[in-house]
Amino acid sequence: MITGKNYIGNQLSAKGNKNFKTFNPLLNVENDWEITEASEEEISDAATLAAESFKIYSKFSGTKKAQFLRAIANEIENLGDELLEVFSAESGLPNGRAVGERGRTLGQLRAFADHVETGNWVEASIDTAQPERQPIAKVDLRKMNIALGPVVVFGASNFPLAFSTAGGDTAAALAAGCPVIVKSHPMHAGTGDLVASAIINAAQKTGMPNGVFSNLNSSGIEVGQLLVQNPNIKAVGFTGSHRGGRALYDLAAKREEPIPVFAEMGSVNPVVILPKALQNRAKEIAKTYSGSITLGTGQFCTNPGLILGIKSDGLNNFVETLAEEIVKIEPSVMLHPNITGAYEKNKATALSQKGIKVLAEYETEVKPNYVRQVVTTVEGNTFLNNTTLHHEVFGPYSIVVQCENKAQLEDIISKLEGQLTGTILSDDDEIASHTNIVNVLQNRVGRIILNGVPTGVEVCPSMLHGGPYPASTDSRFTSVGVDSIKRWARPFSYQDWPNDMLPDELKNENPLGIFRNLNRNLTKEKI
Amino acid sequence: MITGKNYIGNQLSAKGNKNFKTFNPLLNVENDWEITEASEEEISDAATLAAESFKIYSKFSGTKKAQFLRAIANEIENLGDELLEVFSAESGLPNGRAVGERGRTLGQLRAFADHVETGNWVEASIDTAQPERQPIAKVDLRKMNIALGPVVVFGASNFPLAFSTAGGDTAAALAAGCPVIVKSHPMHAGTGDLVASAIINAAQKTGMPNGVFSNLNSSGIEVGQLLVQNPNIKAVGFTGSHRGGRALYDLAAKREEPIPVFAEMGSVNPVVILPKALQNRAKEIAKTYSGSITLGTGQFCTNPGLILGIKSDGLNNFVETLAEEIVKIEPSVMLHPNITGAYEKNKATALSQKGIKVLAEYETEVKPNYVRQVVTTVEGNTFLNNTTLHHEVFGPYSIVVQCENKAQLEDIISKLEGQLTGTILSDDDEIASHTNIVNVLQNRVGRIILNGVPTGVEVCPSMLHGGPYPASTDSRFTSVGVDSIKRWARPFSYQDWPNDMLPDELKNENPLGIFRNLNRNLTKEKI
Repeated sequence: MITGKNYIGNQLSAKGNKNFKTFNPLLNVENDWEITEASEEEISDAATLAAESFKIYSKFSGTKKAQFLRAIANEIENLGDELLEVFSAESGLPNGRAVGERGRTLGQLRAFADHVETGNWVEASIDTAQPERQPIAKVDLRKMNIALGPVVVFGASNFPLAFSTAGGDTAAALAAGCPVIVKSHPMHAGTGDLVASAIINAAQKTGMPNGVFSNLNSSGIEVGQLLVQNPNIKAVGFTGSHRGGRALYDLAAKREEPIPVFAEMGSVNPVVILPKALQNRAKEIAKTYSGSITLGTGQFCTNPGLILGIKSDGLNNFVETLAEEIVKIEPSVMLHPNITGAYEKNKATALSQKGIKVLAEYETEVKPNYVRQVVTTVEGNTFLNNTTLHHEVFGPYSIVVQCENKAQLEDIISKLEGQLTGTILSDDDEIASHTNIVNVLQNRVGRIILNGVPTGVEVCPSMLHGGPYPASTDSRFTSVGVDSIKRWARPFSYQDWPNDMLPDELKNENPLGIFRNLNRNLTKEKI
Repeated sequence: MITGKNYIGNQLSAKGNKNFKTFNPLLNVENDWEITEASEEEISDAATLAAESFKIYSKFSGTKKAQFLRAIANEIENLGDELLEVFSAESGLPNGRAVGERGRTLGQLRAFADHVETGNWVEASIDTAQPERQPIAKVDLRKMNIALGPVVVFGASNFPLAFSTAGGDTAAALAAGCPVIVKSHPMHAGTGDLVASAIINAAQKTGMPNGVFSNLNSSGIEVGQLLVQNPNIKAVGFTGSHRGGRALYDLAAKREEPIPVFAEMGSVNPVVILPKALQNRAKEIAKTYSGSITLGTGQFCTNPGLILGIKSDGLNNFVETLAEEIVKIEPSVMLHPNITGAYEKNKATALSQKGIKVLAEYETEVKPNYVRQVVTTVEGNTFLNNTTLHHEVFGPYSIVVQCENKAQLEDIISKLEGQLTGTILSDDDEIASHTNIVNVLQNRVGRIILNGVPTGVEVCPSMLHGGPYPASTDSRFTSVGVDSIKRWARPFSYQDWPNDMLPDELKNENPLGIFRNLNRNLTKEKI
């Protein structure tokens, strides 16, 4: 049941005097349930409680944290259909997507449980003492990753489950040993409330300290700002717009003690179609990409918003087919009137730029909160000289850049902002003769794809979801996959520490049987 | 031979019109050689050249980079006695230290050569495709660390070799595949000039691209500021004061594209003496610590500037012996009149605080640039209420805090700023009954030491030299040991990439024979 309150640790709390409602974009009405915003006092209490619980929780074994994570997954499953219904009512996303995203969320929680239970993630390193070394004896040093401190996670508008309350950031932080305070996304605060209740149930059933998790509601930006500035908070996870992510980054950098902000801020995800691929597969590619551009109403961070090709009959063919195919797709609803509004505004800005031609736009009138997909074309020169065209239009929008030649294509790629992904569509071995293109593209992205679509972010250890700024604020970390745990940890060294007081990961006997860098050899050996 | 010029890649250049000289603190005179400051044009040229060379250098194999690193070590050795003499003339540090620090520098370069040649550092991860998976086929994903981009390294005043021109930061960045521009430290610009010539010789002999290394001189802060703001620069390494490090961090955070600044900014390195240790070993500890406090005129980042104990006969004993021992040590010279001046100023500020008692100060007049060591005492309450006393006085200064009881000791530790190290001196198993003390100390430091001294930073994989802010700007990385390479790399994913176009680290055949996370198992297996 949706409580509409905040969770300050295990305590339901509604001390604030400001309420708001979520919105059903499909029905174009407000949802019934009322949500109470967190007050300044509640924010401060949650942070203090998180810092207290950190002392206990950060010392828990991988096994104990794994129990908690698995219990969260089970409790979310126990929410049953109510969760799916609220999810759809607050996002307009269909039941199938709700089921799929719940599956992904549970999968992430269980993957992190396995990951910390195994224990290799701490990157244990041991250099044993050499008391007889000349001129100075060598001390015993042992290093491993430990938890960073209380973490604030901002729910993402476009993933009410997988990147929100119990999503990837939360699962990774809890796995690392960090208490989490979620700043629930206002568009799906009811969904967040249900998931928060599941986390609190799981925490109580598995004996976690009070304060290991809190959930705070807000319709504006103040709650988030206060959280990021609270001295008890040691790191921040965010998925959303460039404007929002940068604002949090700036706030965190200005603190007396600056803290890391891991913001994933989306991108245009350039797709380069090489000449032979255009010549041989223009129609097929156009069909595939009309689907990718409109998938989930274009509301994925990896939506292909920029397609690059060199002028040719093949490119003309591609453009024609894309125009035909894109209008065949039925327009769909966006997450919220605010997002529809932003799409329309950003689209209008893009379309008003000199030299932009609308290739195809779905023409029939659409229902409220539904949007029409658009693809445009532009000359390479025009694109190069107008960086407005380089920015993301969040939604089902894409621009095809018609480049003069290979040199211009390379030049354009090298001048793009940082991106989550870059895709190359190539026929046979033509990619082998385009290594310069590959190299400049690699320098601008976090993940490079051959002959696929950027939408679809596999949750696995080898996924890198992030990239050079402004795709993310820190290209050195991924926000998808188990390695995302590294954002919430710091390495720590013990010098000449007694064996029985060391964490299990560093004990002579290697009781967890993990891989350790022992005197510069990766091994599971005991000492 | 000292050229006094800047190296813009392989090119000696002196376009600026401002010159300066370094200073011999032992003789209290300027050194003969004249250094020309880098001009704005030279700064920009070096950055552009670094970005160009990145395209080539970042693709080099571990073996090729290792050849370069080993050649640098050999060329530095070839500088022979001239380097040692200039080192001492510019720092006042004795020949033995020059020899030792050169050895450390060569050792670091060769350790990084081994590290990248072996290849495990890229943390290769492979998840193979499952085309038959339902409901969606699984793609092939392969991830590894790649170079971040051109790096600026600021030479450290207190380590003219090991943390300057070819020091730890430079060796780590070059090992990762990043070109380096050194902003040479003005106090030892001649030393830097000699080492830069060695690096350039090594680069040319091993076929490195022009621009993989540049060395820029300056006596002020402008050159550094321009470098940090240059869009071609992607990361910064710094060792020095909190004020300097924070200023660079702030500049980098304000860029249109923010970049990471890894600043190691020193600390007071708290030492906690537990009751039994005080009771049984007060005199022995006092003797050891009078040596540690004055080692290298107190000019180590890990100098013990804060000693904590609970009031007792043992503590009185310790304080008395420390007072006796500390004045037996002959005062020594500091690196530069500026550093002497800062020590005298910061010491005066500390001594003027209410409740501070000078325990012992070397009383005889000292020569110019020499300084007198001081130890002081203060009550726990007074220390708690005056954060001025928590700050580092860089030099041979230490304060002994006399705590009322265990609770106050714990409270004081929990309120300290972030520290590089924390030390616990314990007798027998008394540490086992002080786990709270251990836990609060761990939360404030990067390395915890039992029954040792914090001075002495072993260069090995298990060393963590860094810590919570303000010990460093990013507690998630070390600046000493081979893992410091992680600061200059980012993970990168290849999706469905052709085997023959993958880097060797990710190829099916595993030609380098490295450990890889293959479908969630760490193994050296081929595919």
